[in-house]
Amino acid sequence: MVDANCTLQLKRLKENLADARDKFLGYPVSKDFDYSALNQFFQYPINNLGDPYEDSTYRVQTHEMEREVVDFFAELFRANPKDYWGYVTNGGSESNLYGLYIAREMYPKAMVYYSESTHYSVRKNIHLLNIPSIVIRSQENGEIDYDDFENTLQFNRDKAAIVLTTFGTTMTEAKDDVSRLKSILKKLAIQDHYIHCDAALSGSYGAFMEPRQAFDFKDGADSISISGHKFVGSPIPCGVIITKRSLKDRISKGISYIGSSDTTITGSRNGHSPLFLWYAIQKLGKEGFRKRYQKSLEVATYCKAALIELGIPAWSNPGSITVVFPKVEEHIKQKWQLATEDEQTHIICMPNVTKDQIDAFIQDLQLAELTAVTPCLSTF
Amino acid sequence: MVDANCTLQLKRLKENLADARDKFLGYPVSKDFDYSALNQFFQYPINNLGDPYEDSTYRVQTHEMEREVVDFFAELFRANPKDYWGYVTNGGSESNLYGLYIAREMYPKAMVYYSESTHYSVRKNIHLLNIPSIVIRSQENGEIDYDDFENTLQFNRDKAAIVLTTFGTTMTEAKDDVSRLKSILKKLAIQDHYIHCDAALSGSYGAFMEPRQAFDFKDGADSISISGHKFVGSPIPCGVIITKRSLKDRISKGISYIGSSDTTITGSRNGHSPLFLWYAIQKLGKEGFRKRYQKSLEVATYCKAALIELGIPAWSNPGSITVVFPKVEEHIKQKWQLATEDEQTHIICMPNVTKDQIDAFIQDLQLAELTAVTPCLSTF
Repeated sequence: MVDANCTLQLKRLKENLADARDKFLGYPVSKDFDYSALNQFFQYPINNLGDPYEDSTYRVQTHEMEREVVDFFAELFRANPKDYWGYVTNGGSESNLYGLYIAREMYPKAMVYYSESTHYSVRKNIHLLNIPSIVIRSQENGEIDYDDFENTLQFNRDKAAIVLTTFGTTMTEAKDDVSRLKSILKKLAIQDHYIHCDAALSGSYGAFMEPRQAFDFKDGADSISISGHKFVGSPIPCGVIITKRSLKDRISKGISYIGSSDTTITGSRNGHSPLFLWYAIQKLGKEGFRKRYQKSLEVATYCKAALIELGIPAWSNPGSITVVFPKVEEHIKQKWQLATEDEQTHIICMPNVTKDQIDAFIQDLQLAELTAVTPCLSTF
Repeated sequence: MVDANCTLQLKRLKENLADARDKFLGYPVSKDFDYSALNQFFQYPINNLGDPYEDSTYRVQTHEMEREVVDFFAELFRANPKDYWGYVTNGGSESNLYGLYIAREMYPKAMVYYSESTHYSVRKNIHLLNIPSIVIRSQENGEIDYDDFENTLQFNRDKAAIVLTTFGTTMTEAKDDVSRLKSILKKLAIQDHYIHCDAALSGSYGAFMEPRQAFDFKDGADSISISGHKFVGSPIPCGVIITKRSLKDRISKGISYIGSSDTTITGSRNGHSPLFLWYAIQKLGKEGFRKRYQKSLEVATYCKAALIELGIPAWSNPGSITVVFPKVEEHIKQKWQLATEDEQTHIICMPNVTKDQIDAFIQDLQLAELTAVTPCLSTF
């Protein structure tokens, strides 16, 4: 029996969630989804056990739709149509863990390189996988420092190199140039190398940036991970990992002694998230994704201009929907749930962020400026 | 725009799921849940970012309910009320990974021991974490061979020991005796040791077994993992890991250089699964869990008796809701989705399995026996 207390608690939770959801600008989470057509599927214990490309006797699954999601992103990332593989994960962390896992299986004695602007979870993953690593300096905009990368690599030419690049850093949405990193590896003749691109934030719209920025398979990546709950939007955190089937098969062999062809991290896997992503893809299509990005970019441009007009030195990286500016007063930070780091803060213009919200935020900033002046006057 | 084709595909999926759901006896998945009261929460991008006991600026979360879920299981597992910690994971695999991760952080040079009946995902986890391991023989009932364990340990007394015990193996629901393993460690004076109990299957009802079987914190476990989508039931695979706060704090320090107090594996975490588990706990309470187990046990006893009456040598481990018997004909295996291994198969009497279903299954067996005889006759 569910008692009145339980019902009350659920009611309160709903109010809190609704309130918190409607007031954030600082998190890369789309909130404009409507998956109510999928509610009917929550009565089934869906479990996408193991590899989505392998049959299982457990048939309460959505493997077919999961494969369609993988197809869609593989195409966006210009994967070789005859050589890709992937699955829907529980989020960017698991996707990155998988990419690094393949890399380690291929080169067990390798060194991992990543910039200091890389998401903290990557360091957790590297620690989990027990691989040595070197952190490379970032440039001021958050992009990896290519000179520091080259100099560091210079002293480690005896080791295979695993390079973890970021396509959209957390704070400034900076993008590491995969082609440029690849050419440095080539220049130093480090043949044993693997590039994993953490495209959690910008991967879903990277294909639509003009001019193009180097991050995908054609640019030199061996695996790419994205988040599903960020730009696309999903009630449940999820992600996608896309890699080359040939690489994945190589690790399957390596771990075949464990007696399973299941190379996924979790085994029992959420079958609803693939359904959400599949539905979003059905609804939007490639063109819908493009428009969604263009709208976000427009709001970001609007936001940046409004801040600059207010005398605030706002800026953004090329093609980025994140506007960066100096940190704001505590009460504004709290109200709009703005993440702050090293004296900087940002607004991420996810597809649900509107110009009206930007206006309301700007008004709060103006008001704060006034009240910062008013007490001064009133003390005279 | 969602077109007719999409709607049709969803309709077909629903039919397939309903059909597959209603015809399985061989998977440890409860199907009798009704979480429709929670559908309203799928409109929110809930994310239980990081440690459920730490504050985050992202407020669209269910951390409070998650902590109540942890409280409930910590009590069932007789954890020290002043020294436990845990979180809701994406399933048994992640829970086991976490337990092994803590163990490795405490004893980086340790050897892992586990029986050959251990779930295959554990081997994947050990490989992922890069820890050496030794597989211990199992007894015929699926329980670890204590003599083999002792003999093996004898030759490895120079190393710290991480013991992964199983409380409910996949095939025969065998249970490794944690107290007995602990006393062997003591006898050999291996002071640096860690016991992680994989209680994915039987953990949720282990506290109600009569007589008690040794598996929990008082018996000597340092961490325990369970599955949420098995006995409790959940549309999405999920799990819980419970450990000692003192151990978790120790690893937090160890990995603090990564600049985050978040020690969870995934970071961005599903906030709906804690809500499902919380709701089930509210609905059932401890007594409801007990009754649920007793009902399952009764159906298992009924099933075993019916099979034996049919001349089939069915058996089960003490307190177990899994009935084991020789493998059946292919068409019956397929129809009831029965997992088969080493000439054995099983029926797992999850709470949704009814005596009527057992009767129908028995009837299928009888029919198969008859038809196995009939063609013989007709050829004469």
